Amino acid sequence: MTENNTKKSANSSGYDYSEIKWPSASRDNMHPADAADHLENLTLEEQVDVIRTKSVEDAAESIAEMETADRVRLLTQLPPDLAADIFAEMSPDDAADVFEELSEPVRGVILAKIDREDAAEITDLLQFDPDSAGGVMNTEILALDENMSAAQTINLIRDRVEESEIPYYVYVVDRYRHLKGVLSLRDLMRSPARTVLRELLKEQNLIYVSFDEDKEDVARLIGRYNFLALPVVDHEQRILGMVTVDDVIDIIQDEASEDMQSMVGAGADETVDSPWTYSLKVRLPWLILNVLNSAISAYVVHFFEGTIAQMAVLAVLMPIVANQAGNTGQQSLAVMIRQLAVERFDRRKVWMAVGREAKIGLVNGLIIGIFVYIGVVLWTKNIALAGVMACALGADMVIGAVAGASIPLVLKELGRDPAQASSIFLTTLTDSLGFFTFLGLSALYLIN
Amino acid sequence: MTENNTKKSANSSGYDYSEIKWPSASRDNMHPADAADHLENLTLEEQVDVIRTKSVEDAAESIAEMETADRVRLLTQLPPDLAADIFAEMSPDDAADVFEELSEPVRGVILAKIDREDAAEITDLLQFDPDSAGGVMNTEILALDENMSAAQTINLIRDRVEESEIPYYVYVVDRYRHLKGVLSLRDLMRSPARTVLRELLKEQNLIYVSFDEDKEDVARLIGRYNFLALPVVDHEQRILGMVTVDDVIDIIQDEASEDMQSMVGAGADETVDSPWTYSLKVRLPWLILNVLNSAISAYVVHFFEGTIAQMAVLAVLMPIVANQAGNTGQQSLAVMIRQLAVERFDRRKVWMAVGREAKIGLVNGLIIGIFVYIGVVLWTKNIALAGVMACALGADMVIGAVAGASIPLVLKELGRDPAQASSIFLTTLTDSLGFFTFLGLSALYLIN
Repeated sequence: MTENNTKKSANSSGYDYSEIKWPSASRDNMHPADAADHLENLTLEEQVDVIRTKSVEDAAESIAEMETADRVRLLTQLPPDLAADIFAEMSPDDAADVFEELSEPVRGVILAKIDREDAAEITDLLQFDPDSAGGVMNTEILALDENMSAAQTINLIRDRVEESEIPYYVYVVDRYRHLKGVLSLRDLMRSPARTVLRELLKEQNLIYVSFDEDKEDVARLIGRYNFLALPVVDHEQRILGMVTVDDVIDIIQDEASEDMQSMVGAGADETVDSPWTYSLKVRLPWLILNVLNSAISAYVVHFFEGTIAQMAVLAVLMPIVANQAGNTGQQSLAVMIRQLAVERFDRRKVWMAVGREAKIGLVNGLIIGIFVYIGVVLWTKNIALAGVMACALGADMVIGAVAGASIPLVLKELGRDPAQASSIFLTTLTDSLGFFTFLGLSALYLIN
Repeated sequence: MTENNTKKSANSSGYDYSEIKWPSASRDNMHPADAADHLENLTLEEQVDVIRTKSVEDAAESIAEMETADRVRLLTQLPPDLAADIFAEMSPDDAADVFEELSEPVRGVILAKIDREDAAEITDLLQFDPDSAGGVMNTEILALDENMSAAQTINLIRDRVEESEIPYYVYVVDRYRHLKGVLSLRDLMRSPARTVLRELLKEQNLIYVSFDEDKEDVARLIGRYNFLALPVVDHEQRILGMVTVDDVIDIIQDEASEDMQSMVGAGADETVDSPWTYSLKVRLPWLILNVLNSAISAYVVHFFEGTIAQMAVLAVLMPIVANQAGNTGQQSLAVMIRQLAVERFDRRKVWMAVGREAKIGLVNGLIIGIFVYIGVVLWTKNIALAGVMACALGADMVIGAVAGASIPLVLKELGRDPAQASSIFLTTLTDSLGFFTFLGLSALYLIN
């Protein structure tokens, strides 16, 4: 966790290392993130060779930083004894994350080779929902008895500092491991040597989360209060582990990718590094849904085929209505999905925000309606057509704004991912209602 | 930065505090983030009253956490003397951020009341681009001479621990303040007391950034290496400050909101808390651009008005082509924008990824094309129409995939925000080319 161990190296992260200066550079103290990039650029055989020459510790750290697909291939290829040693060396939370990705038979073979205690730690962690605090927590913490003195604590930290990942906090517990308080290294350094930890906790407003708390809520909490870590407890308030701020960065980045991608029916977890066949497979069902949804709006148009045959200009203007309402709706959708990502769900507040979007959609609809009215009059000299167009456009823009703001909330209330395919549902609504309003008004007022 | 100072309180963050336990709760040790929420829910007069009753320190911390619009109103309303005291009490980076939001006359009045040294610190920080490392850095750091011993350092930290925001790192400098290395509290606690700091830096690969580095690249770097902070230097490698991990969380969240919202022409910085007239104003120009863009695709349709008059079913199927290609393109767009957000720009890698998207678009286009061919044959019994539709759909889906993947890259290469209005540009392309292909092929092969 210090600025050690990095080097200027071939890497796929895209970071232009030439802008950073590193006085020395040797392969052995490459940062694990760089070593992982280096490995990913090799063939599988070369990867195995490199791992064999590394210390087990370095191998474990590099593999923990590799992309899922790459490390699954690599670990499956390694001799089970070596793979088991590597798992035993990883921090238990990393080990559990990686282990979960392996196929059932590979897991069995490796688990049999890991010593019983380490194996139990990994399988215990696998019990937690990966999207919960328990699923992302780090179990290597310093949990110290409330009767220790500040000086004893500092000495103990000195001895054990290598073991725990970021020992900037120590967790103070009673003899049943019930969490009593949290002390930072700063707090300890400022305290008189003989003070007992329990004394230092007075007036502390302890904040912790339960293991089953949603990991995104944990991330929001850490971000809100600028914590470096947050303790995780069981239902009896016994300390289980901590979620650290570096995990929070990953959680937030993953959530942003999930939202943006699943909104349009791309895979929540795909990246440009995913196998292209994976992306193909995850996107196809949503594209099929999109065709079926488009068929609904096509059906609306079909209903007015006779009207269009009499007045083909309607087919010219019709996409403008749908497109404009779709864009308006996507603006509301984007703001609402980000609201759900950045702050914890507040039912009253977000439903109030739908009213705000409706108001924006209405005024923008009026302005764009007038704008389009003038345009259509100038182009077609047909005042009635321009009126119908402007009304349909304005109405559909309000529909778009309300639908765009509501869809993620409805999905959320149904217990679904608020972003999933939301853009597809939105377009279906704005297209079919836009076509219906425009062609319906045209049939009523423009065709003799 | 410890788990102190929080309370169960009225708040607008949407965090459901009932799920967290806080043993005691008094207004005086409310966390600044909660105090800010509390203030925002009051009228301006009440806000002024509350600020007057708080200590200057508490007032400064709360105001630093408030929303922009709210704190500008509040600070403008406060007596200039009190406002000046509050600014002097804030950490200089927070003070500069808040100060920048004020109107020119209010700035002048307040600046005249702040003592010269504090005022200089604030105005110095205002020189940095707010989107650069210098613009987000924290200047309250511990920069210590390389000739100090570990024991001296620890004693000094004990004395000065209140002053600096997160003193988990000390920066080691020579007598000209050139950055020589970084030591964590852990490193110091593990070192023999008499060792000179310079000795502890051996074999350290120091990583730092220049003040003019893009803040999003700094965030990616801290995320990649799991640092708690990264030192910021000037062009002579003299230490200026540090960017801390809690700022990184804000940078990442802001970037994700900017991307998702500006993609569809909503304001990069708007939230459901922004005044609705602000949202109206920022979205309107993009909606107008969208109308103009739709006019391009409408013009394409207009060109084929005669064809549609002869065969109105074309108007029914036409939106399916455009919609499907648009959705395909948005999937590529989403993946590419997230790639640019998560990793530093790597020209070769991202342009290669366009090929990957083209491949996915092509295969999905073939599959959906076949699917639609069968559907149209079953519905219309018109094999030629089904063939034209399938070809146009498949071709437009490839166009959508390539365009969706390329648009953010082209914008980036032009030095623009890669997300800005990208979805609007994409739809213009997929709509007009989809209509052109479909109606053009129809005119060629379906009309006698």
